[in-house]
Amino acid sequence: MKKSKDQAISLRAGLVGVTGYTGMELARILAGHPSMRLVAATSRQEAGRRLDDIYPFLRGLPGGDVVVSEPDPQALAAACDVVFLAVPHGVAMDMGAALYDAGTRVVDLSADFRLRDTAVFEEWYHTAHTRPGHLARAVYGLPELYADEVRQTRLVANPGCYPTASILGLYAALRHTLIETDGIVIDAKSGATGAGRKAATAMLYCEVADSFRPYNLGRHRHTPEIEQELSRLAGKRLAVSFNPHLLPVHRGILATIYTRLTKPLTQDEAQAAYEQTWAEAPWIRVLPAGQLPETRGVRGTMFCDMAVTVDPRTKRLIITTAIDNLCRGASGQAVANANLMCGLPLSAGLDFAPLVP
Amino acid sequence: MKKSKDQAISLRAGLVGVTGYTGMELARILAGHPSMRLVAATSRQEAGRRLDDIYPFLRGLPGGDVVVSEPDPQALAAACDVVFLAVPHGVAMDMGAALYDAGTRVVDLSADFRLRDTAVFEEWYHTAHTRPGHLARAVYGLPELYADEVRQTRLVANPGCYPTASILGLYAALRHTLIETDGIVIDAKSGATGAGRKAATAMLYCEVADSFRPYNLGRHRHTPEIEQELSRLAGKRLAVSFNPHLLPVHRGILATIYTRLTKPLTQDEAQAAYEQTWAEAPWIRVLPAGQLPETRGVRGTMFCDMAVTVDPRTKRLIITTAIDNLCRGASGQAVANANLMCGLPLSAGLDFAPLVP
Amino acid sequence: MKKSKDQAISLRAGLVGVTGYTGMELARILAGHPSMRLVAATSRQEAGRRLDDIYPFLRGLPGGDVVVSEPDPQALAAACDVVFLAVPHGVAMDMGAALYDAGTRVVDLSADFRLRDTAVFEEWYHTAHTRPGHLARAVYGLPELYADEVRQTRLVANPGCYPTASILGLYAALRHTLIETDGIVIDAKSGATGAGRKAATAMLYCEVADSFRPYNLGRHRHTPEIEQELSRLAGKRLAVSFNPHLLPVHRGILATIYTRLTKPLTQDEAQAAYEQTWAEAPWIRVLPAGQLPETRGVRGTMFCDMAVTVDPRTKRLIITTAIDNLCRGASGQAVANANLMCGLPLSAGLDFAPLVP
Amino acid sequence: MKKSKDQAISLRAGLVGVTGYTGMELARILAGHPSMRLVAATSRQEAGRRLDDIYPFLRGLPGGDVVVSEPDPQALAAACDVVFLAVPHGVAMDMGAALYDAGTRVVDLSADFRLRDTAVFEEWYHTAHTRPGHLARAVYGLPELYADEVRQTRLVANPGCYPTASILGLYAALRHTLIETDGIVIDAKSGATGAGRKAATAMLYCEVADSFRPYNLGRHRHTPEIEQELSRLAGKRLAVSFNPHLLPVHRGILATIYTRLTKPLTQDEAQAAYEQTWAEAPWIRVLPAGQLPETRGVRGTMFCDMAVTVDPRTKRLIITTAIDNLCRGASGQAVANANLMCGLPLSAGLDFAPLVP
Repeated sequence: MKKSKDQAISLRAGLVGVTGYTGMELARILAGHPSMRLVAATSRQEAGRRLDDIYPFLRGLPGGDVVVSEPDPQALAAACDVVFLAVPHGVAMDMGAALYDAGTRVVDLSADFRLRDTAVFEEWYHTAHTRPGHLARAVYGLPELYADEVRQTRLVANPGCYPTASILGLYAALRHTLIETDGIVIDAKSGATGAGRKAATAMLYCEVADSFRPYNLGRHRHTPEIEQELSRLAGKRLAVSFNPHLLPVHRGILATIYTRLTKPLTQDEAQAAYEQTWAEAPWIRVLPAGQLPETRGVRGTMFCDMAVTVDPRTKRLIITTAIDNLCRGASGQAVANANLMCGLPLSAGLDFAPLVP
Repeated sequence: MKKSKDQAISLRAGLVGVTGYTGMELARILAGHPSMRLVAATSRQEAGRRLDDIYPFLRGLPGGDVVVSEPDPQALAAACDVVFLAVPHGVAMDMGAALYDAGTRVVDLSADFRLRDTAVFEEWYHTAHTRPGHLARAVYGLPELYADEVRQTRLVANPGCYPTASILGLYAALRHTLIETDGIVIDAKSGATGAGRKAATAMLYCEVADSFRPYNLGRHRHTPEIEQELSRLAGKRLAVSFNPHLLPVHRGILATIYTRLTKPLTQDEAQAAYEQTWAEAPWIRVLPAGQLPETRGVRGTMFCDMAVTVDPRTKRLIITTAIDNLCRGASGQAVANANLMCGLPLSAGLDFAPLVP
Repeated sequence: MKKSKDQAISLRAGLVGVTGYTGMELARILAGHPSMRLVAATSRQEAGRRLDDIYPFLRGLPGGDVVVSEPDPQALAAACDVVFLAVPHGVAMDMGAALYDAGTRVVDLSADFRLRDTAVFEEWYHTAHTRPGHLARAVYGLPELYADEVRQTRLVANPGCYPTASILGLYAALRHTLIETDGIVIDAKSGATGAGRKAATAMLYCEVADSFRPYNLGRHRHTPEIEQELSRLAGKRLAVSFNPHLLPVHRGILATIYTRLTKPLTQDEAQAAYEQTWAEAPWIRVLPAGQLPETRGVRGTMFCDMAVTVDPRTKRLIITTAIDNLCRGASGQAVANANLMCGLPLSAGLDFAPLVP
Repeated sequence: MKKSKDQAISLRAGLVGVTGYTGMELARILAGHPSMRLVAATSRQEAGRRLDDIYPFLRGLPGGDVVVSEPDPQALAAACDVVFLAVPHGVAMDMGAALYDAGTRVVDLSADFRLRDTAVFEEWYHTAHTRPGHLARAVYGLPELYADEVRQTRLVANPGCYPTASILGLYAALRHTLIETDGIVIDAKSGATGAGRKAATAMLYCEVADSFRPYNLGRHRHTPEIEQELSRLAGKRLAVSFNPHLLPVHRGILATIYTRLTKPLTQDEAQAAYEQTWAEAPWIRVLPAGQLPETRGVRGTMFCDMAVTVDPRTKRLIITTAIDNLCRGASGQAVANANLMCGLPLSAGLDFAPLVP
């Protein structure tokens, strides 16, 4: 294929589910990965088509010539060093277990292996969890928290996009007990790729552009995932008020997180706590005091930009974080987890500079 | 002029300041007003030009043929039954006082006459208030709260856009003491018209589109205005955490307001309190339970759409409101106040249906 | 209903088909019409729902309380002075004929009665025309050309959006024989409402925003409609190269029309020909030399803004026109035709000022 | 710097002019270049600031720590293997000549060295050309046409964005004499980055979003550049009608090019001519029959996607091309030229996959 580079590709990746934006983004990322190549993709609906026919932007790029096949866990496991699941929750559970049992590595982008407590899963997802045994082996793949564990497993539960932005934002404040653990409010805003690529009237251009709306206030399914991880960090059970909104942008989550200070804190102290916590993290950019993140600043990348703002009038610490929900919040993070599982450097193939504007 | 209708216009309006979006919106609204006509416009910068040269969309519409003149309070007062001030704070103060003294009615769209306490004004605006005498005569022109007072005055301080959305949203909850008065958080998102029409790199298309960002967290100048009015409602001094964000949309504010319930409350009770409070208000639309407002739903109109969501998990009442920042939050509200001062029906010329999509 | 005005409504309107943007726009327009009220709406799919449940922006406005019923031509004709058909071509044909035969006035927004020659219809629409008898009675409802004929009929074929922009743009040039009749190229760009409101992956926000694409080059079904009317104007059969593109905007068509001058022409002469031709037309705004139309300048209105540019280097006359495809190019024009058929002033209920920005 | 990779950087690049989008894009591209690093940037206006202060998205990336200095050709030439000029035409002329004379390689992104005929330059740019001697040494840096010449020079005139899309689109048709050389019409649409980053009311978000407008019809300064290159290809002087429009998108040009066939041609023949012409070009993607380009398909990349459509009804060949005006049409092409001049592979650092959506 004329446009593709010869590369010393050592690892073969598979993709289950090709009709959504996370699959599309995985194809984009793997097209430029120095040592991992997309070699298989499956979809009942699209079997027989070339990937670059489904994703025209992929024409002439590595992976574009993959022909979609029917999903077959045994065949996939045999052909792939790692398989990414970009299918809905419920469906991913069995496929992930089958692939795991067949001996390959699995990164599941759905929610099926994220919640440690199956009762919580069933309460929020209204479906039974049929694979508690595999759940016990799954690692929650937020690299800043669990890189070591990910390196040891073959089954990663890739975090949700909102939880990625929320947990990373609150981590340093909870770690340094700067804030009260109760009363946390997360006002999150997401770009439209977060809603997926299925044909739905509510997501038409003319229903989303030049408008803005909240949805699922207090009831979004990413809530228990955030609470699970923050509770671990805080060392006690906590509840958050998590409230999502739909932005007329393609990519990006911006979370504005309202917390109450445990004691008086200067802006400099807050700043220092955050900068010190994240000094060695390659993808966390703590902005200097006075700057605030914007979604475009992380477009197409793995960065999580964050700022802390002390408001002495209301005794609050306001944390703002921005990620690309599709790259950092889904497919890029999935590749990072695959890198870790496969013994590659964390950021292999993920050194994107933001596309601005 | 061929496109204009013959109308029984009884009232003559003037506009001071024509270079911004609020002036543009006033011209749009007055072009269709059944009994008020724009007859004068002033601007040092644009003197000598026709309005429809500055606002090409106005070509062929009533008011388009007005020739901009140098500002002259005496001449304006003589020529106009009511004058709208669409100039920055600080500048409006003297012009408003002069027009008032010259005997005409004034609607000031700036912040100069909104804050009752000049010390608060000076703290937030970093400029001295030189017209405390006129301030005492000014009425805060939020029609749902102060229609009677507006009818009696000749000087209206037109509310800010964010305060309009915030105060209307919290009114019923405070009135019925459903919520605690401390700890209120307002996470507000505004369209780009809110930033005005001056040439600024930060507001270029390529800096705003397909992105989203917070700004002035905890420090926005609309904060004291919100606190002033909520404190009056609550009967005690309260502080709010007010936090604005910039949306890539033209028009619209959506405020998500986080409050703590004073006691357990059902969704039905919250709904009933809101519906009953606003039953007679022509422009407040309390949405049925399960629906949430969106900015496009009020585009180009005077409506304030609002929803209440009880979150029993976190014991919160989450109030969401949507207004058009330019129409309801500025120029349309100004016309409503002019209507009241001039003895017209509140909604004369303001019966817009939302332009959706 | 609290928000609606008491009005001396003399005419009752019906709407067949409520799921699309043209139905939505009709509801918006009729909500403010001084003498026509929406009293009935039909849809198999949505029967039993209130209109303001389907179109939430309509809550509290006249027409919002209409309950959708199953389509029944006899009942509709009995209940309505005029019925608007907002259903796909092919479906409209029979419904329009039945309503006509039942004695009411009909404005068909589909293509079914636009083409005089059923063979041309069948060639471009790949379906048989089963109502040639009714076709003979239908008038092509472009008010600037056929207002007198519309006043005499009970069946109007409402023009397509692209033809409205194209025919109006070329009218004066052909009338004054400024241009050659062969070799005309129309490069047209339309907002996304033109594609309708059906759930389709290709029209999702994330497929349309921040992008631009051509479609159906040389093969769009509006081509024969443009050729039919231009051929009548030119007095001979002509063919045009018509090429549409999809804009990431809600509303608006901008057509850039390339023609060859029949003889040398100055900008002043071109300007004069256009200004003189349209001097009495309430909705045509010929822009002064040096200005060019933009889609926002006509947003939500009946205006057709147009400019002529003589290019002496290439001996071309370039005509640019802008309309709102949904208002002027569909539902607003439909109301104009209904006005004419019902004996109302052409522009009753249609005096919108553009919503800018 | 923690985020940057250790790289075997062999080449040092300088940037003159940092306030615009082309400078920003150069910084983005060089941040990921395997063997070229930004080591110097100059700007009178921004001297003393770090690049990642001016371009916040660059924080933590290679080049972000460069401190902007006052422009000094001698110092720049000493410090750099290649210098990119991202300053306005007129200004670039002298700076480019001085840098060239000081011995470094120069890629000028302005128009100053593009037009071979200084009389034509002066006619369209209304300024004298003061460096005809250097002009004679400059190569027009369109790699598909002039890669060999670029390799031999030290002064490249980087093509304009519109000319890149137009010339590449017409190349194969002219080469195979499929089309007449007169009567060519180019209807081009560009994203807003094409207008640069200077503060201008006309380019504010609220003046561009949700709208579309033509500008400079028949008078755009890229016209002579297109005519120069097409005339060379055609072997005779030709004139084109070039007509730009402003899209509400960040990046992307889509050109729809209308030509007349010299003789009957099938779609297959047109397709074959294009595919064969570009078979070896790494960045030209000739789309299969039935597909048309869209701007997002090339977002952030060097690709030029193109399609040919034979319209037998009007005997036309319609060519559509899409490029990213900022990457392929400016800074990416500049890096490609720098690669060639420096002996690197053409596409070093430029293997971007499109960011979709």
